Amino acid sequence: MKPKLYHCRNARSFRPLWAMEELEMDYELIVLPFPPRVHYKPYLDINPLGTIPFFDDGQAKMTESTGICEYLGNRYGPTDLVVKPDEAEYGAYLNWMFFSDATLTFPQTLVLRYEMLEPKSRRQPQVADDYRMWFSGRLTHVERRLEHKKWIAADRFTMADIAIGYAILLASVLPPLEPCITPTCKAYLDRLRERPGFIRAQNMQKETPVVQV
Amino acid sequence: MKPKLYHCRNARSFRPLWAMEELEMDYELIVLPFPPRVHYKPYLDINPLGTIPFFDDGQAKMTESTGICEYLGNRYGPTDLVVKPDEAEYGAYLNWMFFSDATLTFPQTLVLRYEMLEPKSRRQPQVADDYRMWFSGRLTHVERRLEHKKWIAADRFTMADIAIGYAILLASVLPPLEPCITPTCKAYLDRLRERPGFIRAQNMQKETPVVQV
Repeated sequence: MKPKLYHCRNARSFRPLWAMEELEMDYELIVLPFPPRVHYKPYLDINPLGTIPFFDDGQAKMTESTGICEYLGNRYGPTDLVVKPDEAEYGAYLNWMFFSDATLTFPQTLVLRYEMLEPKSRRQPQVADDYRMWFSGRLTHVERRLEHKKWIAADRFTMADIAIGYAILLASVLPPLEPCITPTCKAYLDRLRERPGFIRAQNMQKETPVVQV
Repeated sequence: MKPKLYHCRNARSFRPLWAMEELEMDYELIVLPFPPRVHYKPYLDINPLGTIPFFDDGQAKMTESTGICEYLGNRYGPTDLVVKPDEAEYGAYLNWMFFSDATLTFPQTLVLRYEMLEPKSRRQPQVADDYRMWFSGRLTHVERRLEHKKWIAADRFTMADIAIGYAILLASVLPPLEPCITPTCKAYLDRLRERPGFIRAQNMQKETPVVQV
Protein backbone atom coordinates (compact mmCIF):
# COMPACT_ATOMS: atom_id res chain seq x y z
CA MET A 1 0.00 0.00 0.00
CA LYS A 2 1.24 3.48 -0.89
CA PRO A 3 1.23 6.13 1.84
CA LYS A 4 -2.00 8.11 1.65
CA LEU A 5 -2.36 11.81 2.46
CA TYR A 6 -5.71 13.52 3.13
CA HIS A 7 -5.30 17.13 2.14
CA CYS A 8 -7.17 20.40 1.63
CA ARG A 9 -5.72 22.85 -0.86
CA ASN A 10 -3.24 25.21 0.84
CA ALA A 11 -3.98 23.83 4.33
CA ARG A 12 -1.07 22.72 6.50
CA SER A 13 -1.22 19.30 4.88
CA PHE A 14 0.70 21.09 2.14
CA ARG A 15 3.79 20.49 4.32
CA PRO A 16 3.78 16.68 3.94
CA LEU A 17 2.61 16.94 0.31
CA TRP A 18 5.62 19.13 -0.47
CA ALA A 19 7.91 16.82 1.54
CA MET A 20 6.78 13.79 -0.49
CA GLU A 21 7.45 15.66 -3.72
CA GLU A 22 10.93 16.65 -2.50
CA LEU A 23 11.53 12.97 -1.73
CA GLU A 24 10.14 12.00 -5.16
CA MET A 25 7.98 9.39 -3.47
CA ASP A 26 5.09 7.40 -4.76
CA TYR A 27 1.93 8.28 -2.77
CA GLU A 28 -1.83 8.64 -2.95
CA LEU A 29 -3.37 12.10 -2.53
CA ILE A 30 -6.97 12.68 -1.47
CA VAL A 31 -8.13 16.29 -1.71
CA LEU A 32 -11.14 17.16 0.45
CA PRO A 33 -13.37 20.26 0.59
CA PHE A 34 -12.48 22.61 3.48
CA PRO A 35 -13.27 22.14 6.29
CA PRO A 36 -13.89 18.41 5.81
CA ARG A 37 -15.64 17.95 9.18
CA VAL A 38 -18.43 20.15 7.73
CA HIS A 39 -18.32 19.38 3.99
CA TYR A 40 -17.28 15.75 3.94
CA LYS A 41 -18.70 14.03 7.02
CA PRO A 42 -17.33 10.51 6.27
CA TYR A 43 -13.91 12.00 7.07
CA LEU A 44 -14.72 11.80 10.79
CA ASP A 45 -14.60 8.00 10.51
CA ILE A 46 -11.10 8.29 9.11
CA ASN A 47 -9.81 11.00 11.45
CA PRO A 48 -12.09 11.52 14.48
CA LEU A 49 -10.32 14.82 15.23
CA GLY A 50 -11.62 16.14 11.90
CA THR A 51 -8.33 17.96 11.32
CA ILE A 52 -6.23 18.11 8.18
CA PRO A 53 -3.78 16.50 7.43
CA PHE A 54 -4.40 12.84 8.02
CA PHE A 55 -1.60 10.60 6.88
CA ASP A 56 -1.93 6.84 6.64
CA ASP A 57 1.15 4.72 6.12
CA GLY A 58 0.10 1.31 7.36
CA GLN A 59 0.95 1.25 11.04
CA ALA A 60 1.63 5.01 11.12
CA LYS A 61 -1.50 7.17 11.31
CA MET A 62 -0.54 10.79 11.77
CA THR A 63 -2.23 14.19 12.10
CA GLU A 64 0.67 16.59 12.80
CA SER A 65 1.95 18.19 9.60
CA THR A 66 5.54 18.84 10.69
CA GLY A 67 5.78 15.50 12.48
CA ILE A 68 4.82 13.76 9.22
CA CYS A 69 7.69 15.56 7.42
CA GLU A 70 10.20 14.31 10.01
CA TYR A 71 8.74 10.80 9.73
CA LEU A 72 8.97 10.85 5.92
CA GLY A 73 12.59 11.98 5.92
CA ASN A 74 13.68 9.31 8.38
CA ARG A 75 11.58 6.47 6.97
CA TYR A 76 11.91 7.13 3.24
CA GLY A 77 15.48 8.46 3.29
CA PRO A 78 18.39 8.50 3.72
CA THR A 79 18.05 12.13 2.71
CA ASP A 80 19.72 15.46 3.43
CA LEU A 81 16.23 16.85 3.99
CA VAL A 82 16.51 15.85 7.65
CA VAL A 83 19.34 16.86 9.99
CA LYS A 84 20.86 13.96 11.92
CA PRO A 85 21.68 13.84 15.65
CA ASP A 86 25.43 13.85 14.94
CA GLU A 87 25.29 17.06 12.89
CA ALA A 88 26.21 20.39 14.49
CA GLU A 89 22.86 21.99 13.68
CA TYR A 90 20.66 19.12 14.88
CA GLY A 91 19.37 21.20 17.83
CA ALA A 92 18.63 24.23 15.64
CA TYR A 93 16.85 22.04 13.10
CA LEU A 94 14.62 20.35 15.69
CA ASN A 95 13.87 23.66 17.32
CA TRP A 96 12.61 25.17 14.05
CA MET A 97 10.56 22.04 13.39
CA PHE A 98 8.73 22.32 16.71
CA PHE A 99 8.55 26.12 16.53
CA SER A 100 6.82 26.00 13.14
CA ASP A 101 3.48 24.73 14.36
CA ALA A 102 3.37 25.48 18.09
CA THR A 103 4.61 29.05 17.74
CA LEU A 104 3.82 30.17 14.19
CA THR A 105 0.81 28.34 12.79
CA PHE A 106 -1.36 28.36 15.91
CA PRO A 107 -1.43 32.18 16.28
CA GLN A 108 -2.28 32.39 12.59
CA THR A 109 -5.35 30.24 13.11
CA LEU A 110 -6.49 32.57 15.93
CA VAL A 111 -6.24 35.66 13.72
CA LEU A 112 -8.09 33.85 10.95
CA ARG A 113 -10.77 32.47 13.24
CA TYR A 114 -11.61 35.63 15.17
CA GLU A 115 -11.20 38.07 12.30
CA MET A 116 -12.51 36.19 9.28
CA LEU A 117 -14.07 32.77 9.86
CA GLU A 118 -16.38 33.19 12.89
CA PRO A 119 -19.88 34.67 12.40
CA LYS A 120 -19.78 38.44 13.02
CA SER A 121 -21.34 38.18 16.50
CA ARG A 122 -18.52 35.90 17.66
CA ARG A 123 -15.60 37.86 16.21
CA GLN A 124 -12.95 39.05 18.68
CA PRO A 125 -10.88 41.90 17.30
CA GLN A 126 -8.79 42.14 20.50
CA VAL A 127 -7.75 38.48 20.31
CA ALA A 128 -7.00 38.78 16.59
CA ASP A 129 -4.81 41.81 17.38
CA ASP A 130 -3.08 40.04 20.31
CA TYR A 131 -2.06 37.13 18.11
CA ARG A 132 -1.21 39.23 15.07
CA MET A 133 1.31 40.96 17.36
CA TRP A 134 2.49 37.58 18.64
CA PHE A 135 2.89 36.24 15.12
CA SER A 136 4.75 39.33 14.01
CA GLY A 137 7.15 39.11 16.99
CA ARG A 138 7.85 35.45 16.33
CA LEU A 139 8.37 36.14 12.65
CA THR A 140 11.05 38.71 13.55
CA HIS A 141 12.89 35.81 15.18
CA VAL A 142 12.72 33.86 11.89
CA GLU A 143 13.84 36.91 10.00
CA ARG A 144 16.92 37.47 12.17
CA ARG A 145 17.89 33.93 11.27
CA LEU A 146 17.35 34.44 7.54
CA GLU A 147 19.17 37.75 7.27
CA HIS A 148 22.49 36.07 6.57
CA LYS A 149 21.33 32.57 5.66
CA LYS A 150 19.71 31.12 2.61
CA TRP A 151 18.03 28.27 4.52
CA ILE A 152 16.80 27.99 8.10
CA ALA A 153 19.10 25.23 9.39
CA ALA A 154 22.31 23.35 8.54
CA ASP A 155 23.08 25.58 5.51
CA ARG A 156 20.94 23.48 3.19
CA PHE A 157 17.26 23.12 2.32
CA THR A 158 15.61 20.78 4.87
CA MET A 159 12.23 19.76 6.25
CA ALA A 160 12.56 22.78 8.58
CA ASP A 161 12.28 25.05 5.51
CA ILE A 162 9.09 23.23 4.54
CA ALA A 163 7.74 23.65 8.08
CA ILE A 164 8.68 27.33 8.53
CA GLY A 165 8.24 28.23 4.85
CA TYR A 166 4.65 26.99 4.86
CA ALA A 167 3.77 29.26 7.81
CA ILE A 168 5.21 32.28 5.99
CA LEU A 169 3.52 31.27 2.74
CA LEU A 170 0.16 31.10 4.54
CA ALA A 171 0.68 34.53 6.12
CA SER A 172 1.58 36.00 2.73
CA VAL A 173 -1.84 35.15 1.29
CA LEU A 174 -3.97 36.14 4.31
CA PRO A 175 -4.94 39.83 4.22
CA PRO A 176 -4.76 40.30 8.03
CA LEU A 177 -1.24 38.84 8.20
CA GLU A 178 0.27 39.84 4.89
CA PRO A 179 1.62 43.16 6.28
CA CYS A 180 3.90 41.12 8.62
CA ILE A 181 5.85 39.81 5.62
CA THR A 182 9.10 41.76 5.26
CA PRO A 183 11.49 41.83 2.27
CA THR A 184 13.73 39.19 3.91
CA CYS A 185 10.74 36.86 4.24
CA LYS A 186 9.63 37.66 0.68
CA ALA A 187 13.07 36.76 -0.70
CA TYR A 188 12.98 33.49 1.26
CA LEU A 189 9.53 32.70 -0.17
CA ASP A 190 10.87 33.35 -3.66
CA ARG A 191 13.68 30.84 -3.09
CA LEU A 192 11.19 28.27 -1.83
CA ARG A 193 8.78 28.80 -4.74
CA GLU A 194 11.56 28.09 -7.25
CA ARG A 195 12.13 24.57 -5.98
CA PRO A 196 10.97 21.87 -8.41
CA GLY A 197 9.50 19.93 -5.46
CA PHE A 198 7.40 22.93 -4.44
CA ILE A 199 6.18 23.44 -8.00
CA ARG A 200 5.26 19.76 -8.36
CA ALA A 201 3.36 19.85 -5.05
CA GLN A 202 1.45 22.97 -6.15
CA ASN A 203 0.52 21.32 -9.45
CA MET A 204 -0.45 18.12 -7.70
CA GLN A 205 -2.95 19.87 -5.40
CA LYS A 206 -4.37 21.85 -8.32
CA GLU A 207 -4.75 18.87 -10.65
CA THR A 208 -6.20 16.40 -8.14
CA PRO A 209 -10.00 16.76 -8.15
CA VAL A 210 -11.70 17.57 -4.84
CA VAL A 211 -13.69 14.60 -3.49
CA GLN A 212 -17.44 15.20 -3.75
CA VAL A 213 -19.87 13.95 -1.09
CA MET B 1 30.43 23.06 29.59
CA LYS B 2 27.37 21.32 31.01
CA PRO B 3 24.04 21.83 29.24
CA LYS B 4 22.19 24.69 30.90
CA LEU B 5 18.40 24.93 31.29
CA TYR B 6 16.56 28.17 32.12
CA HIS B 7 13.38 27.18 33.91
CA CYS B 8 10.38 28.54 35.80
CA ARG B 9 8.76 26.23 38.32
CA ASN B 10 6.03 24.10 36.71
CA ALA B 11 6.36 25.91 33.35
CA ARG B 12 6.78 23.83 30.22
CA SER B 13 10.54 23.82 30.80
CA PHE B 14 9.63 21.06 33.25
CA ARG B 15 9.58 18.77 30.20
CA PRO B 16 13.35 19.00 29.49
CA LEU B 17 14.15 19.10 33.24
CA TRP B 18 12.30 15.82 33.69
CA ALA B 19 13.93 14.38 30.54
CA MET B 20 17.41 15.19 31.89
CA GLU B 21 16.57 13.48 35.18
CA GLU B 22 15.29 10.41 33.34
CA LEU B 23 18.60 10.37 31.43
CA GLU B 24 20.51 10.86 34.72
CA MET B 25 22.51 13.62 33.07
CA ASP B 26 24.77 16.23 34.54
CA TYR B 27 23.32 19.71 33.87
CA GLU B 28 23.00 23.22 35.21
CA LEU B 29 19.55 24.50 36.24
CA ILE B 30 18.67 28.18 36.47
CA VAL B 31 15.28 28.92 38.01
CA LEU B 32 13.80 32.31 37.14
CA PRO B 33 10.77 34.20 38.50
CA PHE B 34 7.69 33.93 36.24
CA PRO B 35 7.33 35.50 33.76
CA PRO B 36 11.03 36.28 33.35
CA ARG B 37 10.49 38.92 30.65
CA VAL B 38 8.79 40.99 33.38
CA HIS B 39 10.60 39.95 36.56
CA TYR B 40 14.10 39.25 35.30
CA LYS B 41 14.84 41.62 32.43
CA PRO B 42 18.43 40.41 31.76
CA TYR B 43 16.80 37.24 30.45
CA LEU B 44 15.90 39.04 27.21
CA ASP B 45 19.63 39.19 26.39
CA ILE B 46 19.80 35.42 26.75
CA ASN B 47 16.52 34.59 24.98
CA PRO B 48 15.13 37.56 22.99
CA LEU B 49 11.77 35.77 22.70
CA GLY B 50 11.46 36.00 26.49
CA THR B 51 9.91 32.52 26.57
CA ILE B 52 10.68 29.63 28.89
CA PRO B 53 12.47 27.23 28.44
CA PHE B 54 15.79 28.32 27.06
CA PHE B 55 18.29 25.51 26.68
CA ASP B 56 21.94 26.12 25.97
CA ASP B 57 24.15 23.20 24.96
CA GLY B 58 27.03 24.87 23.19
CA GLN B 59 26.03 25.06 19.55
CA ALA B 60 22.44 24.09 20.33
CA LYS B 61 20.28 26.94 21.66
CA MET B 62 16.69 25.83 21.95
CA THR B 63 13.32 27.22 23.05
CA GLU B 64 10.84 24.44 22.23
CA SER B 65 10.25 22.20 25.25
CA THR B 66 9.33 18.99 23.39
CA GLY B 67 12.02 19.56 20.76
CA ILE B 68 14.62 19.72 23.56
CA CYS B 69 13.43 16.33 24.87
CA GLU B 70 13.89 14.76 21.43
CA TYR B 71 17.34 16.38 21.14
CA LEU B 72 18.40 15.11 24.57
CA GLY B 73 17.34 11.54 23.85
CA ASN B 74 19.18 11.42 20.53
CA ARG B 75 22.29 13.30 21.66
CA TYR B 76 22.75 11.89 25.16
CA GLY B 77 21.50 8.37 24.44
CA PRO B 78 21.34 5.70 23.23
CA THR B 79 18.17 5.41 25.25
CA ASP B 80 14.77 3.72 25.03
CA LEU B 81 13.26 7.10 25.90
CA VAL B 82 13.16 7.92 22.19
CA VAL B 83 11.54 5.78 19.50
CA LYS B 84 13.76 5.12 16.49
CA PRO B 85 12.79 5.36 12.79
CA ASP B 86 13.02 1.57 12.37
CA GLU B 87 10.53 0.86 15.18
CA ALA B 88 6.89 0.12 14.35
CA GLU B 89 5.56 2.96 16.52
CA TYR B 90 7.94 5.66 15.27
CA GLY B 91 5.10 7.51 13.50
CA ALA B 92 2.83 7.35 16.55
CA TYR B 93 5.65 8.55 18.80
CA LEU B 94 6.51 11.55 16.59
CA ASN B 95 2.85 12.41 16.24
CA TRP B 96 2.35 12.59 20.02
CA MET B 97 5.52 14.65 20.36
CA PHE B 98 4.29 17.29 17.91
CA PHE B 99 0.69 17.06 19.17
CA SER B 100 1.78 17.80 22.75
CA ASP B 101 2.62 21.45 22.24
CA ALA B 102 0.84 22.51 19.05
CA THR B 103 -2.48 20.91 19.98
CA LEU B 104 -2.54 20.59 23.77
CA THR B 105 -0.40 23.26 25.43
CA PHE B 106 -1.33 26.20 23.19
CA PRO B 107 -5.09 26.03 23.91
CA GLN B 108 -4.23 25.80 27.62
CA THR B 109 -2.35 29.08 27.42
CA LEU B 110 -5.40 30.73 25.81
CA VAL B 111 -7.71 29.61 28.61
CA LEU B 112 -5.20 30.79 31.20
CA ARG B 113 -4.55 34.10 29.49
CA TYR B 114 -8.13 35.16 28.83
CA GLU B 115 -9.64 33.76 32.02
CA MET B 116 -6.96 34.35 34.66
CA LEU B 117 -3.86 36.31 33.62
CA GLU B 118 -5.16 39.30 31.63
CA PRO B 119 -6.45 42.38 33.51
CA LYS B 120 -10.24 42.14 33.94
CA SER B 121 -11.02 44.61 31.13
CA ARG B 122 -9.15 42.42 28.62
CA ARG B 123 -10.59 39.06 29.63
CA GLN B 124 -12.44 37.12 26.95
CA PRO B 125 -14.76 34.49 28.39
CA GLN B 126 -15.90 33.36 24.92
CA VAL B 127 -12.33 32.63 23.80
CA ALA B 128 -11.53 30.86 27.08
CA ASP B 129 -14.64 28.71 26.54
CA ASP B 130 -13.81 28.02 22.88
CA TYR B 131 -10.37 26.70 23.80
CA ARG B 132 -11.49 24.85 26.92
CA MET B 133 -13.80 22.92 24.57
CA TRP B 134 -10.93 22.45 22.12
CA PHE B 135 -8.60 21.20 24.85
CA SER B 136 -11.25 18.85 26.20
CA GLY B 137 -11.90 17.40 22.72
CA ARG B 138 -8.20 16.86 22.11
CA LEU B 139 -7.78 15.28 25.52
CA THR B 140 -10.49 12.74 24.62
CA HIS B 141 -8.17 11.68 21.81
CA VAL B 142 -5.35 11.12 24.34
CA GLU B 143 -7.71 9.26 26.59
CA ARG B 144 -8.87 6.85 23.87
CA ARG B 145 -5.21 5.99 23.43
CA LEU B 146 -4.61 5.45 27.16
CA GLU B 147 -7.69 3.34 27.78
CA HIS B 148 -5.86 0.12 27.03
CA LYS B 149 -2.26 1.26 27.21
CA LYS B 150 0.01 2.12 30.08
CA TRP B 151 2.18 4.51 28.03
CA ILE B 152 1.38 6.69 25.03
CA ALA B 153 3.68 5.07 22.42
CA ALA B 154 5.75 1.95 21.75
CA ASP B 155 4.49 0.18 24.92
CA ARG B 156 7.16 1.79 27.09
CA PHE B 157 7.74 5.09 28.86
CA THR B 158 9.23 7.58 26.35
CA MET B 159 9.79 11.29 25.79
CA ALA B 160 6.23 11.34 24.38
CA ASP B 161 4.94 10.57 27.90
CA ILE B 162 6.93 13.52 29.22
CA ALA B 163 5.50 15.74 26.47
CA ILE B 164 1.85 14.64 26.81
CA GLY B 165 2.06 13.96 30.55
CA TYR B 166 3.21 17.52 31.25
CA ALA B 167 0.18 18.97 29.40
CA ILE B 168 -2.17 16.82 31.48
CA LEU B 169 -0.28 17.63 34.67
CA LEU B 170 -0.66 21.36 33.95
CA ALA B 171 -4.39 20.99 33.29
CA SER B 172 -4.81 19.07 36.55
CA VAL B 173 -3.61 22.03 38.62
CA LEU B 174 -5.44 24.81 36.74
CA PRO B 175 -8.97 25.39 38.11
CA PRO B 176 -10.51 26.21 34.69
CA LEU B 177 -9.13 23.03 33.12
CA GLU B 178 -9.13 20.58 36.00
CA PRO B 179 -12.71 19.38 35.24
CA CYS B 180 -11.41 18.02 31.88
CA ILE B 181 -9.27 15.45 33.71
CA THR B 182 -11.00 12.06 33.64
CA PRO B 183 -10.22 8.93 35.70
CA THR B 184 -8.14 7.47 32.83
CA CYS B 185 -6.01 10.63 32.76
CA LYS B 186 -5.76 10.64 36.56
CA ALA B 187 -4.48 7.06 36.58
CA TYR B 188 -1.91 7.97 33.91
CA LEU B 189 -0.75 10.94 36.01
CA ASP B 190 -0.37 8.65 39.00
CA ARG B 191 1.88 6.34 36.98
CA LEU B 192 3.97 9.30 35.83
CA ARG B 193 4.29 10.76 39.33
CA GLU B 194 5.70 7.47 40.64
CA ARG B 195 8.73 7.58 38.35
CA PRO B 196 12.00 8.27 40.17
CA GLY B 197 13.01 10.67 37.36
CA PHE B 198 9.81 12.68 37.86
CA ILE B 199 10.35 12.83 41.62
CA ARG B 200 13.96 13.96 41.20
CA ALA B 201 12.91 16.66 38.74
CA GLN B 202 10.23 17.89 41.16
CA ASN B 203 12.76 18.04 43.99
CA MET B 204 15.31 19.74 41.78
CA GLN B 205 12.95 22.60 40.89
CA LYS B 206 11.89 22.98 44.52
CA GLU B 207 15.42 22.98 45.94
CA THR B 208 17.06 25.27 43.36
CA PRO B 209 16.69 28.87 44.57
CA VAL B 210 14.94 31.34 42.26
CA VAL B 211 17.39 33.88 40.77
CA GLN B 212 16.87 37.35 42.25
CA VAL B 213 17.26 40.51 40.17
